Amino acid sequence: QTASPAVAKPSRLGLCASCHGETGMAVMPGAPNLAGQRLDYLRQALKDYRDGRRDAPVMRAAIGPIGAAELDALARWYSAQAPAAASAP
Amino acid sequence: QTASPAVAKPSRLGLCASCHGETGMAVMPGAPNLAGQRLDYLRQALKDYRDGRRDAPVMRAAIGPIGAAELDALARWYSAQAPAAASAP
Repeated sequence: QTASPAVAKPSRLGLCASCHGETGMAVMPGAPNLAGQRLDYLRQALKDYRDGRRDAPVMRAAIGPIGAAELDALARWYSAQAPAAASAP
Repeated sequence: QTASPAVAKPSRLGLCASCHGETGMAVMPGAPNLAGQRLDYLRQALKDYRDGRRDAPVMRAAIGPIGAAELDALARWYSAQAPAAASAP
């Protein structure tokens, strides 16, 4: 699938995409698909990782001290992507 | 969308469905969509909730002492569902 044109590509997307894919279909075992995920859930998950309420070593390393605008941009990006019909197990 | 016929409906699905929907499109604010999510991720998330490595009050209350077979059935069910094209925010 192609990326949604309605939402600007976040500058920080590259690091996320290395596991979750640029359009939110995961490319790494253990990583979840994010395409079309609910915006409220993605925002909360990113905040929880940033603030240590949710802990996964790779996410702790990847997210760092992310600002509110960047966090919002990433959540909006992935929520706006269309999930692919068949997901790898 | 209709439920996938390839995977048997788990007996315990009702409680999950009250937030995540029967086909994995969330019906409750704050709950993530699970339709088409990667099977390995869903299995790990359920184990993490069951064993306390991941904590969310509603999931702690909902999951209880789930057995391996039930856990696997739920992960397989939601992973096998087709995500709807447009997800509520």
